Amino acid sequence: MCTAMKFNECVLQDTPGDHNKVWKWHIQDPASQRLTWNKPPKSVLVIKKIRDATLLQPFKELCIFLTEVKNMIVYVEKKVLEDPAISGDENFGAITKKFCTFREDLDDISNRVDFIICLGGDGTLLYASSLFQESVPPVMAFHLGSLGFLTPFKFDTYQSQVTQIIEGNAAIVLRSRLKVRVLKENWEKKARVDEKGIILTNGDIENSRKVVQYQVLNEVVVDRGPSSYLSNVDLFLDGHLITTVQGDGVIVSTPTGSTAYAVAAGASMIHPNVPAIMITPICPHSLSFRPIVVPAGVELKIMLSRDARNTAWVSFDGRKRQEICHGDSITITTSCFPVPSICFRDPVNDWFESLAQCLHWNVRKKQNYLSSEDEEF
Amino acid sequence: MCTAMKFNECVLQDTPGDHNKVWKWHIQDPASQRLTWNKPPKSVLVIKKIRDATLLQPFKELCIFLTEVKNMIVYVEKKVLEDPAISGDENFGAITKKFCTFREDLDDISNRVDFIICLGGDGTLLYASSLFQESVPPVMAFHLGSLGFLTPFKFDTYQSQVTQIIEGNAAIVLRSRLKVRVLKENWEKKARVDEKGIILTNGDIENSRKVVQYQVLNEVVVDRGPSSYLSNVDLFLDGHLITTVQGDGVIVSTPTGSTAYAVAAGASMIHPNVPAIMITPICPHSLSFRPIVVPAGVELKIMLSRDARNTAWVSFDGRKRQEICHGDSITITTSCFPVPSICFRDPVNDWFESLAQCLHWNVRKKQNYLSSEDEEF
Amino acid sequence: MCTAMKFNECVLQDTPGDHNKVWKWHIQDPASQRLTWNKPPKSVLVIKKIRDATLLQPFKELCIFLTEVKNMIVYVEKKVLEDPAISGDENFGAITKKFCTFREDLDDISNRVDFIICLGGDGTLLYASSLFQESVPPVMAFHLGSLGFLTPFKFDTYQSQVTQIIEGNAAIVLRSRLKVRVLKENWEKKARVDEKGIILTNGDIENSRKVVQYQVLNEVVVDRGPSSYLSNVDLFLDGHLITTVQGDGVIVSTPTGSTAYAVAAGASMIHPNVPAIMITPICPHSLSFRPIVVPAGVELKIMLSRDARNTAWVSFDGRKRQEICHGDSITITTSCFPVPSICFRDPVNDWFESLAQCLHWNVRKKQNYLSSEDEEF
Amino acid sequence: MCTAMKFNECVLQDTPGDHNKVWKWHIQDPASQRLTWNKPPKSVLVIKKIRDATLLQPFKELCIFLTEVKNMIVYVEKKVLEDPAISGDENFGAITKKFCTFREDLDDISNRVDFIICLGGDGTLLYASSLFQESVPPVMAFHLGSLGFLTPFKFDTYQSQVTQIIEGNAAIVLRSRLKVRVLKENWEKKARVDEKGIILTNGDIENSRKVVQYQVLNEVVVDRGPSSYLSNVDLFLDGHLITTVQGDGVIVSTPTGSTAYAVAAGASMIHPNVPAIMITPICPHSLSFRPIVVPAGVELKIMLSRDARNTAWVSFDGRKRQEICHGDSITITTSCFPVPSICFRDPVNDWFESLAQCLHWNVRKKQNYLSSEDEEF
Repeated sequence: MCTAMKFNECVLQDTPGDHNKVWKWHIQDPASQRLTWNKPPKSVLVIKKIRDATLLQPFKELCIFLTEVKNMIVYVEKKVLEDPAISGDENFGAITKKFCTFREDLDDISNRVDFIICLGGDGTLLYASSLFQESVPPVMAFHLGSLGFLTPFKFDTYQSQVTQIIEGNAAIVLRSRLKVRVLKENWEKKARVDEKGIILTNGDIENSRKVVQYQVLNEVVVDRGPSSYLSNVDLFLDGHLITTVQGDGVIVSTPTGSTAYAVAAGASMIHPNVPAIMITPICPHSLSFRPIVVPAGVELKIMLSRDARNTAWVSFDGRKRQEICHGDSITITTSCFPVPSICFRDPVNDWFESLAQCLHWNVRKKQNYLSSEDEEF
Repeated sequence: MCTAMKFNECVLQDTPGDHNKVWKWHIQDPASQRLTWNKPPKSVLVIKKIRDATLLQPFKELCIFLTEVKNMIVYVEKKVLEDPAISGDENFGAITKKFCTFREDLDDISNRVDFIICLGGDGTLLYASSLFQESVPPVMAFHLGSLGFLTPFKFDTYQSQVTQIIEGNAAIVLRSRLKVRVLKENWEKKARVDEKGIILTNGDIENSRKVVQYQVLNEVVVDRGPSSYLSNVDLFLDGHLITTVQGDGVIVSTPTGSTAYAVAAGASMIHPNVPAIMITPICPHSLSFRPIVVPAGVELKIMLSRDARNTAWVSFDGRKRQEICHGDSITITTSCFPVPSICFRDPVNDWFESLAQCLHWNVRKKQNYLSSEDEEF
Repeated sequence: MCTAMKFNECVLQDTPGDHNKVWKWHIQDPASQRLTWNKPPKSVLVIKKIRDATLLQPFKELCIFLTEVKNMIVYVEKKVLEDPAISGDENFGAITKKFCTFREDLDDISNRVDFIICLGGDGTLLYASSLFQESVPPVMAFHLGSLGFLTPFKFDTYQSQVTQIIEGNAAIVLRSRLKVRVLKENWEKKARVDEKGIILTNGDIENSRKVVQYQVLNEVVVDRGPSSYLSNVDLFLDGHLITTVQGDGVIVSTPTGSTAYAVAAGASMIHPNVPAIMITPICPHSLSFRPIVVPAGVELKIMLSRDARNTAWVSFDGRKRQEICHGDSITITTSCFPVPSICFRDPVNDWFESLAQCLHWNVRKKQNYLSSEDEEF
Repeated sequence: MCTAMKFNECVLQDTPGDHNKVWKWHIQDPASQRLTWNKPPKSVLVIKKIRDATLLQPFKELCIFLTEVKNMIVYVEKKVLEDPAISGDENFGAITKKFCTFREDLDDISNRVDFIICLGGDGTLLYASSLFQESVPPVMAFHLGSLGFLTPFKFDTYQSQVTQIIEGNAAIVLRSRLKVRVLKENWEKKARVDEKGIILTNGDIENSRKVVQYQVLNEVVVDRGPSSYLSNVDLFLDGHLITTVQGDGVIVSTPTGSTAYAVAAGASMIHPNVPAIMITPICPHSLSFRPIVVPAGVELKIMLSRDARNTAWVSFDGRKRQEICHGDSITITTSCFPVPSICFRDPVNDWFESLAQCLHWNVRKKQNYLSSEDEEF
């Protein structure tokens, strides 16, 4: 049985004597979350970046290992098997008959897989996240090329690594996601967009209104899109107008997303265990528009400013790009459904390793540039 | 009875069917913490910045109001009353006789006051924090001049505001503090420093070792001190060497401190309700040494690098400056004892108000600099 | 007769004695450039932002003053007079008959006007610049709303101010421009773009090649355009590959442009009298990609990287947006033809005034945030 | 005969026709400056970092080569030869008898050496610069360890490299210096400081005043010194108060110095051929206090603000640290005497090479972090 994770808990104790409360809290070790199983896992979803030839052999090896050696039920997306490089392989064909297949947006596999294995770059994990709008099974992500922020495992020793996960012995980091609702007014009148998500309500014909919901692992980006005109968007927090963004746009990111687009826009890097939301302007006009970090529990809303002369565009983990017009709104809160991401070592070491490898964080040659002082003459 | 504050709680539920756990958590509204009293408050500590003539009249008014109208027991520091401008005032003298007085570092007032009122700048709250090494009573802080990050109340309407607090009707923000332990090796051999804190252990004479502990509300700063030579300090996180700081120094701050010295050194601003610790280099040599934010539960340690040619200096909320030599260490964790800071409105509005007032955050004239596009010819 | 402007001149003198040269240079005062006339100015080009009702009255007043009082020949763009708000005004109509009119891109007015007066925002000056591909007459720019970087004059006292310019008594700042050549390979095969400039060469039909040239006052921007895919562009300096830009794009700006888009992307501000070119990445992936400043005499070239999977887009002072494909190149050097911009006071005071007004540069409330140290208890 | 270097020259030509001037300038190629000799060089100053054992052998080799093979007169600082590791070497002793020796601050060697060779880090060049308050001979600087910004030559092939310089075939970059004058009021009353420079005037006894002058190659730093109190200094430009610096301090640097301390404080990097002065605040309170770049010809002055409660400290290329009190002033202009620094390849390639090697500028792994878009599923 897995214990509940508490970031911090403040216990206000009544004191026995004359006085009031003692203000004290308990702080939990962020490295203490671990994966355990109630019953041994039986099913695994394997996600593979398609059309990448270098992944074919590892993918086949892994699937054979999971099916033949570990007796797992393997779930694979239908289009992965339709790749000629796979469907044309007779030997592997026999194995694939044992697989469960599904189609994105059509088949519901929630509550059917015990854990997920990703093969590819950070994008595979973003894709895995998008498949599960509610509870996400634990994810084990392999990088085939260079280490990514979201893909800590090397494929070399996959057999022992996967065995260890199946046995339930692994540190885990719960990566918070953002629940984003896009409310579009006058839907019929507007241009169609490529969309995905759960359609919550359909408006009347006269006053068509549409709400789409997304689960986002990295960030929501609102920018000026194809236009070279400026965006002017208002940012609300818990219903209050906090500020107006004038510039190329704004990024609302999870701590996981702080090391993605946000870091390029100047943000500080936030460890994924911090329950927070980061707001980072993109090329703001104002010299003083520094990024800010707000607590996980707030509700953000973004709308075009009343006097904005142009529309804005929004995307979710870099996908589902769509236009935002006057009256539309984007509402963002921390999701109840994090992505349980299996660690290679532990949440702290994995993160600092990827800071160094992916961002060259504070990698430098030891040099004394103010050397006139250090040197004697 | 006050309920416990939980930042986030992850409940991993067993599902009834065939499968494993549901990964889901509950996120609490950061604005939901409120001050309530088990029994009406009876005692109040009034902290006044000394030698500031503009505070004399407000101080007297407030004390008379608390004593005469509200029948509170007023605690005041002894040296405040020794100020000739106060001791020489005969009218006020009669009132002061009812006060309880104490001396910093000598008299223990923990568990004796129900709440604190500060008059002055942000420094008064830092000072109040330093008086309480364990549980801190709720603090109501007035700015007499301009709004500060830690002093949200205006003095104009102090009577109704104080009455409201006594009645127990106020939002509160729990500002995390850092518990800092400085371990100094070979203490006797080293220069004496001005110190404050709790002496935990005294070493043997042969191998003298000394540990001093501080509670810090804003930040711990390690820098090169009076030397113009460079600092080289190692930063450990949960026992692992994370990075080496080469530059003017490093700031380890609370979210509260993120808007103080850290913001000047380039940090993003973090809302005080985020359970995190911020690490910000001061003028680092490396272009890629961006500030980072780590979860509240980690343990940081700072030591001189083995090959550092110079010592470093450390200070705590800008006080108690002391030298750090080879072998000494500074250990930093989030304290169990936050500062309950009473809000003027609520944690979110107060913070954004102070961002605008104190830092001019994103205050700008609406201007279209890319104006060739916006203008038609 | 106007003296030549020299930024710096290094005179290497032969010494009379035994030894070699003396390395010494003469540095000129940047505030020493002034407008003088060889013969009194007779013609003035008046540029007005169109479709802005607030400019109508000032425009008419100014034109009447120039024509009737000052006996100047007024040049106005044809479409300005075609505005119904002007063509419908019978009183003003009589005056307009004395104007010389021209059409953008069709009529050549170079060498026909002695100076230019702009009414509107910074965009009017960018537009004025674009009208003159070679020598630009001195420009006097009025802001009607708030002060701009390029529009230092207030309209209130336009009569005395204009009189002073006509009399030849004014400080001037020579704003460097960039000469940009866009070479497009396989022109016929590519999508048509809205273009302006001088078509230098037309390629053969088989291997169509096209070169267009622009004079840019603020900046050349290369970005990912409507695509959400990343740009990968190579940057060459004097023929050598200097670096590869991976991110949202790159800005090559004049010092004048350093306070426009570049400042939003994180650049330092450069006074227009510094003979330099600024290179600023837009949201670069690399933490260490700080903006750089290179001397005015270099030649920059930008091309898509060989392995870039997407095209890039380029714009010039925010206009003439066009796609850049594999094989195309953008060559940038400092133009021989600066924009002589008439100062309200002088180059230094005008610049710092606009830094404060337009960017709130270092405008702050005097506050002691590290106040624990400054305050005594 | 060496031709004069002109950064930019604006020729305002009278046009033959009816009109006024043509505004046009000539921009010189920054890579065009080269070292040539009027007569073959005969004397060379060799500067060696003292007490660095790794430099002993290269130093001896070089001196023997210069004396025996090239028949040059070698100048060496007296204290270098007094090093036991040199004075104790009998073989080398015979050679040293041919050297000309001098003592810092006591013997004048200006106009006596044709060029300088430095062995050591960037500090050796700063030291060489400080020896010459007026014209500086060309400097050839070797790095023995890793490449520095000021030390482009590798020692491996010193013989051919030095021969080439003697033959007068080399690109050169003229590194501007700052001429700094420190005016101290009431000198006798103040604490003595370690000083160097030319004492220009000595005040009367009653109203003692002292002016000291320095030539600075990297930067002048004004900071809070050993105090943890804040600095408040006023910055004047050509006599006008430009801004007040509130923070840890301010750096006034040459382009050469932009890659030293200034870059750590957040400045953009400026190529040494740009005739400019950079002003960079150190940890400023104001979010909007971005660094600025002003033209080489201005005069800056720094003084304590009238309401500053603490003194400030100033240093010059990291040396001669001294206190600045109320009434004192620091005046800074571009010096007439640059440091002619011999290039390994040319000014542009050398600079970008050192940006990459010393600062890891835009060195990164090619990674597609926004990979969800780039990857297909």
